Amino acid sequence: METEEFPTKVNLSTRRRFAASFGSHLKETFFPDDPFRQFRDLPACGKAWTALKYFVPALGWASNYTFAKFRYDLLAGITIASLAIPQGISYARLANLPPIIGLYSSFVPPLIYAILGSSNNLAVGTVAAGSLLLASIISVEVSPSGNPQLYSQLFYTAAFFTGILQTALGFLRLGMLVDFLSRSTITGFMGGTAIIIILQQLKGMLGLKHFTTKTDLVSVMHSVFKYRDEWKWESAVLGICFLCFLLVSRHLKTKVPKLFWVSAIAPLLVVVLGGIFAFLVHGDDHGIPTVGSLKKGLNPISISDLKFQSQYLSTAIKAGLLSGFLALAEGIAVGRSLALLKNEQIDGNKEMIAFGMMNIVGSFFSCYLTTGPFSKSAVNFHAGCKTPMSNVVMSVCIMLVLLFLAPLFEHTPLVALSAIIIVAMIGLIEYEEIHHLFKVDKFDFCICMAAFLGVALFNMVAGLASSVGLSILRALLYVARPNTCKLGNITGTAMYRDIEQYPSSSSFPDILILQLGSPIYFANAGYLRERISRWVEDEESIIKKDGEDLLYVILDIGGVTSIDNTGIGMLKEIHRILSRRKIKMVITNPRLEVATKLVSSNFIDLIGENWVFLSVKDAITACRYALQESGEKGEEA
Amino acid sequence: METEEFPTKVNLSTRRRFAASFGSHLKETFFPDDPFRQFRDLPACGKAWTALKYFVPALGWASNYTFAKFRYDLLAGITIASLAIPQGISYARLANLPPIIGLYSSFVPPLIYAILGSSNNLAVGTVAAGSLLLASIISVEVSPSGNPQLYSQLFYTAAFFTGILQTALGFLRLGMLVDFLSRSTITGFMGGTAIIIILQQLKGMLGLKHFTTKTDLVSVMHSVFKYRDEWKWESAVLGICFLCFLLVSRHLKTKVPKLFWVSAIAPLLVVVLGGIFAFLVHGDDHGIPTVGSLKKGLNPISISDLKFQSQYLSTAIKAGLLSGFLALAEGIAVGRSLALLKNEQIDGNKEMIAFGMMNIVGSFFSCYLTTGPFSKSAVNFHAGCKTPMSNVVMSVCIMLVLLFLAPLFEHTPLVALSAIIIVAMIGLIEYEEIHHLFKVDKFDFCICMAAFLGVALFNMVAGLASSVGLSILRALLYVARPNTCKLGNITGTAMYRDIEQYPSSSSFPDILILQLGSPIYFANAGYLRERISRWVEDEESIIKKDGEDLLYVILDIGGVTSIDNTGIGMLKEIHRILSRRKIKMVITNPRLEVATKLVSSNFIDLIGENWVFLSVKDAITACRYALQESGEKGEEA
Repeated sequence: METEEFPTKVNLSTRRRFAASFGSHLKETFFPDDPFRQFRDLPACGKAWTALKYFVPALGWASNYTFAKFRYDLLAGITIASLAIPQGISYARLANLPPIIGLYSSFVPPLIYAILGSSNNLAVGTVAAGSLLLASIISVEVSPSGNPQLYSQLFYTAAFFTGILQTALGFLRLGMLVDFLSRSTITGFMGGTAIIIILQQLKGMLGLKHFTTKTDLVSVMHSVFKYRDEWKWESAVLGICFLCFLLVSRHLKTKVPKLFWVSAIAPLLVVVLGGIFAFLVHGDDHGIPTVGSLKKGLNPISISDLKFQSQYLSTAIKAGLLSGFLALAEGIAVGRSLALLKNEQIDGNKEMIAFGMMNIVGSFFSCYLTTGPFSKSAVNFHAGCKTPMSNVVMSVCIMLVLLFLAPLFEHTPLVALSAIIIVAMIGLIEYEEIHHLFKVDKFDFCICMAAFLGVALFNMVAGLASSVGLSILRALLYVARPNTCKLGNITGTAMYRDIEQYPSSSSFPDILILQLGSPIYFANAGYLRERISRWVEDEESIIKKDGEDLLYVILDIGGVTSIDNTGIGMLKEIHRILSRRKIKMVITNPRLEVATKLVSSNFIDLIGENWVFLSVKDAITACRYALQESGEKGEEA
Repeated sequence: METEEFPTKVNLSTRRRFAASFGSHLKETFFPDDPFRQFRDLPACGKAWTALKYFVPALGWASNYTFAKFRYDLLAGITIASLAIPQGISYARLANLPPIIGLYSSFVPPLIYAILGSSNNLAVGTVAAGSLLLASIISVEVSPSGNPQLYSQLFYTAAFFTGILQTALGFLRLGMLVDFLSRSTITGFMGGTAIIIILQQLKGMLGLKHFTTKTDLVSVMHSVFKYRDEWKWESAVLGICFLCFLLVSRHLKTKVPKLFWVSAIAPLLVVVLGGIFAFLVHGDDHGIPTVGSLKKGLNPISISDLKFQSQYLSTAIKAGLLSGFLALAEGIAVGRSLALLKNEQIDGNKEMIAFGMMNIVGSFFSCYLTTGPFSKSAVNFHAGCKTPMSNVVMSVCIMLVLLFLAPLFEHTPLVALSAIIIVAMIGLIEYEEIHHLFKVDKFDFCICMAAFLGVALFNMVAGLASSVGLSILRALLYVARPNTCKLGNITGTAMYRDIEQYPSSSSFPDILILQLGSPIYFANAGYLRERISRWVEDEESIIKKDGEDLLYVILDIGGVTSIDNTGIGMLKEIHRILSRRKIKMVITNPRLEVATKLVSSNFIDLIGENWVFLSVKDAITACRYALQESGEKGEEA
């Protein structure tokens, strides 16, 4: 008769074999985006062509490239080139490198990316945060003024290791490591970095000659006031003019989005006007320092400059790996958010390989760390780019500048570069996001603040490490203390929900229903044992007052996604504890993976297959039926 | 009308304030066992007495201690003392310490534990694995034969730090750290340790004088054969006799459980008989080395011997912390499993404080690391102990031995001690558990094997670290790749379950139902976005063949225990992706904590409160109703 009452039972016989389940795990871990889907149902030569297109995305877009598209890409390419020149020079100076290296880095890497990259919107270039991070690590080992050649060589070497790391992560499909830099961490890190970079620009704005190499707020401010006698009012006045101009052009963009190109071209305008002005008034002699000598000519080959001697190797590797992770996180996040706006897909692992290859090749041609910076990519997007061809156009523009125009930029006043950096950095402080975090999730806010304050008050590595550490601690806590709740029946339905959330739901005197969630495994098995025992004791102490006994504990494990050996041991222990108190343990709705393990570890035999149900409702019906039966027997006796 | 159709809606108004939710999190994290429950509803002086009893459990059992109980404790105490003497001497020799320190360590710590410990079954003493671990770390720094005094002093210092660590963990209620030593890790570690300890006994069994200080299998076997000319046949013959005797007595216990005391007393018998034999035949001159000089007298005070100089400090701290964690894990696991058999409760954090205090005080009185070893505690349990008084009895017995009988043990043949250790270690290799692991969970088996092989082939720290590392990696993978599945309707019911698990369940052409689980947060948000997109694309490619369109995606998030900022951002992204494909996103059954965050981050406003349902069934009904409406409108037009 019982089969009629419960027509649907938990399916305990469907089990995946180990090989199948292991294969599926591997696939979910490393190929969540299923890149091989497109190869199905193709003939052999089609497969080869698809594979080639898979590894060289340029073949995909180049085969149906049209002049109409090129018009858009040309415009976008010229626009981003106008941004690349001042940014390249600025960020190279931020890294204490010769300014020309910033231009070199905008020539070779974009070409590589255009061939291998899968995003149509990304514009390749150097980044402020990465430049400062590299400088802060490498200048500890080698002084940029004492041994400038070795200093640059270590930057190339770091870029080489960045490339190796990124390519390796891409091939090993370990893109998920980047996920451990959470959005909160990146928000805080970017905000803190922007603050210290802005403060560092006080050097340029005030025309200082001496300055600290440390990046923290206290050292920088101390340094600014220590060299008070070096302050140049001419520099400051010119800087404030540039700043106002750039801020107005930025404001214009937000008011009239169509005029985005004004703000895109503004930095180059500032550089050109500033250069003419400084040239006319002989700026260097009147308190307006300029960039100074820029050689004509393309990137020199630097493959023999890579330093693999053990003395500097660890510094180069450390700088390369840290900045590589950071650059990857920024590049992939930027590519993803822009692709989303156009409803396109980008492949994170393929992007990593493209980033890695452009850094490796770049390191052979006097380039340092490059990625897809947010500011430049956004300009590229708004300028209407269609394919990575815009990077090629930018690259050609930079090549022309290197070949013919570079010496013209010698007269660029440093203060103009400082103004450009300050305006770019202001956009990276996301006040609203931080406020939103505070409102929604206090722990996320702490993670964000750890990065923000760590970077601003100590150094960039400390800020990043403490924030990631907090994130991982949280990840472990999440699984070490999973939520459990007591369920009650929502009156008039067959549904059982959290009684704290639905206070009007009703419970049964001799049945306790608990809902578990999350995976059950060694890190939370001990906690769950304690917690379930406490639920049972609390329930008993309540109902004992009414003279009732607790007879059934129903564990709803529908939310338990997986279980390990320690977890099963814990369930067995709970069963033993409950049995001793004469309480029957009932299980409802185990998922496929959990059910498989419960069967193979004999746990199901222990509690009896009849006490595993598909839903809480079925379990309750069975419990009440059993109670009634035993009650009748009791009365008969 | 809609309110009538769906009388029960998701409760989005019940929200816990931040303080309440934070408080509850703190409580669940640090006080999962709710130790203050017993203080409720008590008058002030009652509270004070309960608090005192809470911190000094001895007051609890001493106040109603009877002679009847003492009779049991006396018997149990004498039994474990008979085991403590040979084990103390053996394990001290395993640690390359003077044998007398093993006896010292069985005198002071049990007294402290009897006052502060909360387990009625635990017998305190030294442990083999801990002794070997300490020796393997400390002998790298100081040679046990070169500078025996400093060597012992570092053991006391390590015990001091062990105590500080354990007490601090207890007070900070960080007992959960011990949970990260999973059962698989401990099984593998114990097995590996047992193997190498047994191999090390070849030194005693063969009567070798020279031996390696390394612990790995290759070094030990190499060492055994290198000193082939030192092999003594007399020693080997005597050893095999002892071994057979001990194994038979052990076998007797499993056959006739009532005769457990035979196997409990057997080691002492071996020591006494072996001593008499060696004394009579002048063993030392005939290839049977003996323990040698044992001084009469109680523990010398060693408080001034603790070495806090920076030169040795790091070694002592490292040895103390590692062995402390290991000892804690063993002691708590043993206490818990024995308590379970008697249906008693023990408090993990209180146990830690007791272990910590006994190690601190022990380090002042020439004792090294002690905990609750499995073998001794099991004997205590079977001998019928009722309270920690049995530890006091053992302590008094050892005191008498130290005062009067110690010199008698000088003649104990080393080969007897080796036989005792071998037999104790054989019991620690849990073949069946390892086989069970292989059957149930291959990853757990790998974790176990990492510890087993790491310990056997490299060293104990490497084995432990690689196994714990794998466990944590697994913990992170568990949450980085949570299970998702497609749900179908189980025919004839209102239930929706995994279609892979219930292949007969049916799905709707234009509605895709997905079940998420685990917490959603930064480490898995990226994966879930990819995975959900893939589910949607797969579904579309299937139903497009039938000329249908996918119109609704229902996400069942009843199994999602919590969500962070990145996770909410991911849901918003999914919503944007689906909107662009003209697919409506529907949410069912958010839990309290998740619902609170979805509301405060405006996600609910984004998808519309009308599209949040309490169950999948309600959501399906609403979708079909909306489809019908739009269909009618379409027909009208």
